[in-house]
Amino acid sequence: MLHALSSPRLFRIRPWQPDSGVAMSASETSTPMNVNENEEQGLLDAINDRYGGVIVEVTQPMDSALFASVLSASMAQWRQQGKRGVWIKLPIQHVNLVEAAVKEGFWYHHAEPNYMMLVHWLPQGAHTLPANASHRVGIGAFVMNKNREVLVVQENIGRLRGTGVWKFPTGVVNEGEDLCAAAVREVKEETAIDTKFVQVLAFRQSHKVFFEKSDIFFLCLLEPLSFEIQKQESEIEAAKWMPIEEYAAQPFVQKYELLKCSVDICLAKKDGNYSGFSPVLTSSAFSNEKSYMYFNIHDLNKQ
Amino acid sequence: MLHALSSPRLFRIRPWQPDSGVAMSASETSTPMNVNENEEQGLLDAINDRYGGVIVEVTQPMDSALFASVLSASMAQWRQQGKRGVWIKLPIQHVNLVEAAVKEGFWYHHAEPNYMMLVHWLPQGAHTLPANASHRVGIGAFVMNKNREVLVVQENIGRLRGTGVWKFPTGVVNEGEDLCAAAVREVKEETAIDTKFVQVLAFRQSHKVFFEKSDIFFLCLLEPLSFEIQKQESEIEAAKWMPIEEYAAQPFVQKYELLKCSVDICLAKKDGNYSGFSPVLTSSAFSNEKSYMYFNIHDLNKQ
Repeated sequence: MLHALSSPRLFRIRPWQPDSGVAMSASETSTPMNVNENEEQGLLDAINDRYGGVIVEVTQPMDSALFASVLSASMAQWRQQGKRGVWIKLPIQHVNLVEAAVKEGFWYHHAEPNYMMLVHWLPQGAHTLPANASHRVGIGAFVMNKNREVLVVQENIGRLRGTGVWKFPTGVVNEGEDLCAAAVREVKEETAIDTKFVQVLAFRQSHKVFFEKSDIFFLCLLEPLSFEIQKQESEIEAAKWMPIEEYAAQPFVQKYELLKCSVDICLAKKDGNYSGFSPVLTSSAFSNEKSYMYFNIHDLNKQ
Repeated sequence: MLHALSSPRLFRIRPWQPDSGVAMSASETSTPMNVNENEEQGLLDAINDRYGGVIVEVTQPMDSALFASVLSASMAQWRQQGKRGVWIKLPIQHVNLVEAAVKEGFWYHHAEPNYMMLVHWLPQGAHTLPANASHRVGIGAFVMNKNREVLVVQENIGRLRGTGVWKFPTGVVNEGEDLCAAAVREVKEETAIDTKFVQVLAFRQSHKVFFEKSDIFFLCLLEPLSFEIQKQESEIEAAKWMPIEEYAAQPFVQKYELLKCSVDICLAKKDGNYSGFSPVLTSSAFSNEKSYMYFNIHDLNKQ
């Protein structure tokens, strides 16, 4: 049930919900459980979330001293009402209000280029607020043609620049992007080769890769649908088809278990009976949209 | 090569590097490529990153007007030097400086409870700065005893509260935490059952689960090492061992492909020859620490 917006307000209400819970739910259309009945002048307009907290989204410019006073009065009311988490979404154009919120006891929950989300926990004791996103997700693409040549690139940015190392195309999965789509996209961007996603062959989780964040890297098998390479100008120094044995023999590949093991897995996939995880679109609880589940279809089907 | 700190400064220098690149690297000890030689009064102290940018970490209180003027002068110098990305790490106690940075053209890159990271891109054209963490990672634990009973819980928070649905223990993987360790931890926290991690049986990626962030959920097989359940008070309403057939027969499980498919996979694992991905500690490039790689060991070993 969406809240019908009433006459002019300082703060627009938008249905949105933090989710403290578990990852079994896919994208959903959030609906507020109910709405804040208090709309007297001098209090922030807010909606209730399903965890006993409230959410404020500032959408209009405001003087920081006025905001401080209105926020303070609102906090008193929310405390009285037994509210738990208080969320304030501040678009970057209202950066002048950040300091007042922090002075009121709020801290940073997360930020994106165009907004900051602040939060405060009113009850006694440790908060049960959901954590910020913790991982970056990357893919590496194993693409081999019929001549047993793999698609490899040399990068002109990052740590391998100038080292002469040939590597699989790799890249970062965007927020909201399926990793199977990301693998196809990255190969296309870096080499202009069209591919079809087949399987996740392995993955690796590592830590403190990027700020304090962790990282999951998926090694993916893709089948080439085209063969003429055109390298990306901005990030790729060179790209070519290289015999897999030549790729594997590079000292850089031989030196690191991760890369060596990846080659063994790729060869087991191509020459043997290695089963990775294949993507299957599935519906899940709490969701209107389907999402990809990856599992060993080969083994499941042979039962 | 670490920069030797010189006499009192407004801004402490800390070696730290954004990484635009690829996920093949695990945790590493970052070292600055070189350091900013400019330490005249009136300019921010910064270190160079390996991508042609600079990093400033504010560690001392400062008047916001003074900061604005020093930042402005520093920006002029960095522009002249052809610098690319400019990063400012502002601990929350220096929140008074956020507005000045935004007025200078900085935007939010990310935030954690105790600090905000602002960034600016000096060259013409689109920036090549690394994205913020995009995913939350969760686990679900399939734990079955010798009587073919699975460990299940009812939650007293979140969407399933009060629904009577019995589910596998689930939880969120912390920043910096191995997912195999997170699975064991969550089962222990929710039920007091000790377990040993065996395999990832499947995973699911979904989107817009939490703010605009995506989510990867790993279905994991764990072997129970103890059997006496003691439920967690704060989040768990009830916990018990339940015959797998009874778990599977729940309408909630039957209704959703994801859950139904998960049961099929779990049974194929227990009764058939389903191979998931097992964790193996491996070394990787750029890293001093080992990290877990997950793959189909069974199939790799049979080659």
